[in-house]
Amino acid sequence: MLNPVLEITLTHVQPDSGSTAWLLAASALVLLMVPGLAFFYGGMVRVTSVLNMMMMVFGALAVFMIVWVLIGYSLAFGTDHGGVIGDPTQYFGFQKLLDPANDGAYPGLIFAAFQGLFGAITVGLIAGAIADRTKFGTWLIFTALWTVLVYAPVAHWIFASQNGHGGWLVDHLHVLDFAGGTAVEINSGAAGLAAALVLGKRIGFGRDPMKPHNLTLTMIGAGLLWFGWFGFNSGSALAANHTAALVFVNTLLAGCAGLLVWCLVERVRDGHATSFGAASGVVAGLVAITPSCGAVTPFGALVVGGLAGAICAVAVGLKFKFGYDDSLDVVGVHLVGGLIGTIAIGLLASTRATSVNGLFYGGGADQLWRQALAALVTFVFSFAVTAALAWILDRTVGFRIHEDHEASGVDLVIHAEAAYELHMSTSSRGAPRL
Amino acid sequence: MLNPVLEITLTHVQPDSGSTAWLLAASALVLLMVPGLAFFYGGMVRVTSVLNMMMMVFGALAVFMIVWVLIGYSLAFGTDHGGVIGDPTQYFGFQKLLDPANDGAYPGLIFAAFQGLFGAITVGLIAGAIADRTKFGTWLIFTALWTVLVYAPVAHWIFASQNGHGGWLVDHLHVLDFAGGTAVEINSGAAGLAAALVLGKRIGFGRDPMKPHNLTLTMIGAGLLWFGWFGFNSGSALAANHTAALVFVNTLLAGCAGLLVWCLVERVRDGHATSFGAASGVVAGLVAITPSCGAVTPFGALVVGGLAGAICAVAVGLKFKFGYDDSLDVVGVHLVGGLIGTIAIGLLASTRATSVNGLFYGGGADQLWRQALAALVTFVFSFAVTAALAWILDRTVGFRIHEDHEASGVDLVIHAEAAYELHMSTSSRGAPRL
Amino acid sequence: MLNPVLEITLTHVQPDSGSTAWLLAASALVLLMVPGLAFFYGGMVRVTSVLNMMMMVFGALAVFMIVWVLIGYSLAFGTDHGGVIGDPTQYFGFQKLLDPANDGAYPGLIFAAFQGLFGAITVGLIAGAIADRTKFGTWLIFTALWTVLVYAPVAHWIFASQNGHGGWLVDHLHVLDFAGGTAVEINSGAAGLAAALVLGKRIGFGRDPMKPHNLTLTMIGAGLLWFGWFGFNSGSALAANHTAALVFVNTLLAGCAGLLVWCLVERVRDGHATSFGAASGVVAGLVAITPSCGAVTPFGALVVGGLAGAICAVAVGLKFKFGYDDSLDVVGVHLVGGLIGTIAIGLLASTRATSVNGLFYGGGADQLWRQALAALVTFVFSFAVTAALAWILDRTVGFRIHEDHEASGVDLVIHAEAAYELHMSTSSRGAPRL
Repeated sequence: MLNPVLEITLTHVQPDSGSTAWLLAASALVLLMVPGLAFFYGGMVRVTSVLNMMMMVFGALAVFMIVWVLIGYSLAFGTDHGGVIGDPTQYFGFQKLLDPANDGAYPGLIFAAFQGLFGAITVGLIAGAIADRTKFGTWLIFTALWTVLVYAPVAHWIFASQNGHGGWLVDHLHVLDFAGGTAVEINSGAAGLAAALVLGKRIGFGRDPMKPHNLTLTMIGAGLLWFGWFGFNSGSALAANHTAALVFVNTLLAGCAGLLVWCLVERVRDGHATSFGAASGVVAGLVAITPSCGAVTPFGALVVGGLAGAICAVAVGLKFKFGYDDSLDVVGVHLVGGLIGTIAIGLLASTRATSVNGLFYGGGADQLWRQALAALVTFVFSFAVTAALAWILDRTVGFRIHEDHEASGVDLVIHAEAAYELHMSTSSRGAPRL
Repeated sequence: MLNPVLEITLTHVQPDSGSTAWLLAASALVLLMVPGLAFFYGGMVRVTSVLNMMMMVFGALAVFMIVWVLIGYSLAFGTDHGGVIGDPTQYFGFQKLLDPANDGAYPGLIFAAFQGLFGAITVGLIAGAIADRTKFGTWLIFTALWTVLVYAPVAHWIFASQNGHGGWLVDHLHVLDFAGGTAVEINSGAAGLAAALVLGKRIGFGRDPMKPHNLTLTMIGAGLLWFGWFGFNSGSALAANHTAALVFVNTLLAGCAGLLVWCLVERVRDGHATSFGAASGVVAGLVAITPSCGAVTPFGALVVGGLAGAICAVAVGLKFKFGYDDSLDVVGVHLVGGLIGTIAIGLLASTRATSVNGLFYGGGADQLWRQALAALVTFVFSFAVTAALAWILDRTVGFRIHEDHEASGVDLVIHAEAAYELHMSTSSRGAPRL
Repeated sequence: MLNPVLEITLTHVQPDSGSTAWLLAASALVLLMVPGLAFFYGGMVRVTSVLNMMMMVFGALAVFMIVWVLIGYSLAFGTDHGGVIGDPTQYFGFQKLLDPANDGAYPGLIFAAFQGLFGAITVGLIAGAIADRTKFGTWLIFTALWTVLVYAPVAHWIFASQNGHGGWLVDHLHVLDFAGGTAVEINSGAAGLAAALVLGKRIGFGRDPMKPHNLTLTMIGAGLLWFGWFGFNSGSALAANHTAALVFVNTLLAGCAGLLVWCLVERVRDGHATSFGAASGVVAGLVAITPSCGAVTPFGALVVGGLAGAICAVAVGLKFKFGYDDSLDVVGVHLVGGLIGTIAIGLLASTRATSVNGLFYGGGADQLWRQALAALVTFVFSFAVTAALAWILDRTVGFRIHEDHEASGVDLVIHAEAAYELHMSTSSRGAPRL
């Protein structure tokens, strides 16, 4: 007969303050990725639309989180219905999470916040595909609907593991996706492509240079994103343990490899390694390691990050060839990088890191087709629903600003602001305005 | 008879590395709020005084912490005398905290640092009310005196709970203030109002536009502040536990609600939602949730944040009506937001989150009058002592710079610097200077 | 006979999720110091080389980490050979760290990442000494070789304590260096001096003003560095415990003292306290407390930080007197500050904080000569090897850019970019370019 005290231990997970501490810190880190993304993108656009870009990213966070606490979290993590969706009313207002007695090793509330911030970043990423030309109000409506129609279902499929009876990708197809190659990266990339196609090209796309207006701001964003990404990936271990440490190392190495290889491609192809390329390379490496960070060894992480650096450096040029105005390379970096990372698990997964071996480690093609199928399904679903949603919004409330407004610059027209007032005059009379 | 080992457990709290880890991280996060505030404010001022504003915030941290380690911490957290002040010599140099044997669940040293950083932020906030016109040396003297005369006593009243025999607000009046609606927000707001009145209006106040010179810098500040605020609020749980997680969620939601509602007010009132408004709305929501984050449910947090967004968006206009130059809206955001959050506890506190119910949850008006009284007392004390202190400094060493200096710009005159040198010339000869 | 369960406890350290949580967070904080350094330095250079400076710092991280995972970590932390170097193949690819069974209180992988990030910062610091004139490709080669030839050995000497049979400085000479006064600060400062001498002065050094182009960017860097430094120093406790808390307090106080004293020196000497001085003073204080943070009391930290603020404020002027172009004061701040902090341990160490007393605490000169010898050896080794390495690279692949390129600005020539495009025109036709 078991000792009664021991029995309790076996049937109820004790709170672990160390893992809770890490999840609190990791959630704060993921929150910081939102401003990080706002600055990364904000620096890339022209000086006339930096405020609008930051507003889109911050605004998406605000709308997303409110939808999340009302219904999104329930749809994503409520009790599963048929592998496709969670119970939509289960966690309304997070009320069921308020009783500490229901907590496991960490409080349910911090898990709900952590997962919500994943979605908020995902929506924010889409903004990069439709820079300089989007109605702000419609964007907020889009965010609310996209959260319910696209993010929550896909997050349920891949993240809501419920003892083998949860989301179909994770619990039936046994797809590996540690921190969101599907739900975050492919999802945002596919949605960005759809939205960019519906909204159409910016005036001057492919003709005007549209250079980043402030590369130091972009680097600030890249730095904060990398920092925050350790919370994103390593926090997904949901514990302060060995796996979290492995994921940390892989996240570090993949970003490094992405940076170096992207710069190398630029150097060979264009003669110059750019800081824009370095920042993009870091992010490409981080995107690709997001799903695979818990499945590969440090060598695998170097390969995944390096591949993403090389392929994404080429992929960002496709928009000019095919004529879609994915303004800030959401497709080229997040869709392509997400595909690389999700599929790479089928090739490079190692039992030294996870439960299965990939093709190159003698595990055969079994995991590979599961990963490829998950990537494909995510892409198709996200692209189709987003395209429909964006189209409907465009035909009803309008999604794109007026052509004249675009020429004047969206900051001034929509937000009645200019980002910089750098001239020294202390009054407006006769002073040159930027 | 108790097992001796168990007896020790009951009489001495064991160190908890998880809670210590969270307090270390949370303290670092609060430190980051100091630069965050410097950038938030720095972006808002004109290009001729951004360095001075950042210097005031950084300088306040440095002076505050040195006063804190000498006497401030003792006054605030030393053994209580009559409910109003702590023993002033008890923790001189933190020497009594150096013995690990005196530590509880977490080291006393990290508590002392964490609490000190609260005060450093509080002083820094005041700087926003007296932008562009303050003598830097006098500001540092003000900081040292204000720490002893205002911050330490108020912090003692509300934060120094000592088994029912500590500060009078917390241990006798039973006021709830999780992370500083009184000691930090109302306190800094009241002090800012007093200082702004003593120093008087800037030249051109109400006539010149005085637009923010760099809204990307303000957004960087807002992003870092939000990130750091999770340490501020959630770290105030002093443990990595359920309460910390609830506070995290509430801090997240209140910022989101503040952002959206402030933007909505702007859109309806002015026709445009601005990024300046979005940043201000986030901060207003965070200010209001600071006292209430441990007392309300997630729904309550949405209400508190939304209310702050709405009311503060209006309150920041009062300075033009009443003619006080609260330059960067310390009154409109921190005083008003602090009042909202402190009083809201009396209305929205829920036993699902804390120990009492507010008026709207069937708890009657008992908590409400306690909260209102604490808010009032803090306001009156802080305003009166700060006004006297600022007035004395102004009459003795002088608190405001010379009128000519103000016209030239405080950066150049006081610090002999210009923030930006963006022209390409590599030499100064003949090059246009910004 | 021991209880078998207890026996296991005695012979194998149990995982501690709290300490692991802190090491995960601390490692992320140290990663953030890399962008922090990039912005700190980036703001100091002229507008024509800010991107290059950021690229050098980011690029150094990427190259360093890849060398680290291949051989650097083994050289530094592999089983000791003769006190001078670790087994070079022991941790190839971190493969020996992948088995959780080998973990102690925290995973070996996070220790390897944490230590690697120390080295990445160290290399990045060197870049500040050779701003505006360095070939980017050669810099990356330099980084790889310097990691192996200089950083790994010195880190082994001082950080690889192996039960008395590890690195000679720590295990034989019993030098105290909590977080890298030798391996990081003196090492980077000596290397910076050597590299600056080999590369020679910038065109116009000592004649043109070469003012910082963006002091807000420098302040952003300083803020992020300070924040990250808590991970750097306090994480070096390798546990979430009392020592980590003491180190946190000391790191906070030394930065404050450095800021105030540097500004005071400027005020007395030049009539103006500058924001550049404030940022430099914070960093000087942090540099000096890096080795001593675990050995001194909070009063000691104030002294160490204040001394560094005073002495470094003078030392940064030496380059003009002696004619070496240490462009961003790596020598004046990191070499001098590192010397101060390393030697101060011999004077100010207290058994209230560590295992020995320094000279001023009645411990005699025993620890002092050990500290001084370690500082000297580190300086000589780093200077000599770096000078030889830089000289060889300069004679073979070339280390300095062409004189014409330097005049045009390294951003445009090497990276084909300009940092800012702040003019409003949406097309390049006829638009004024910065």
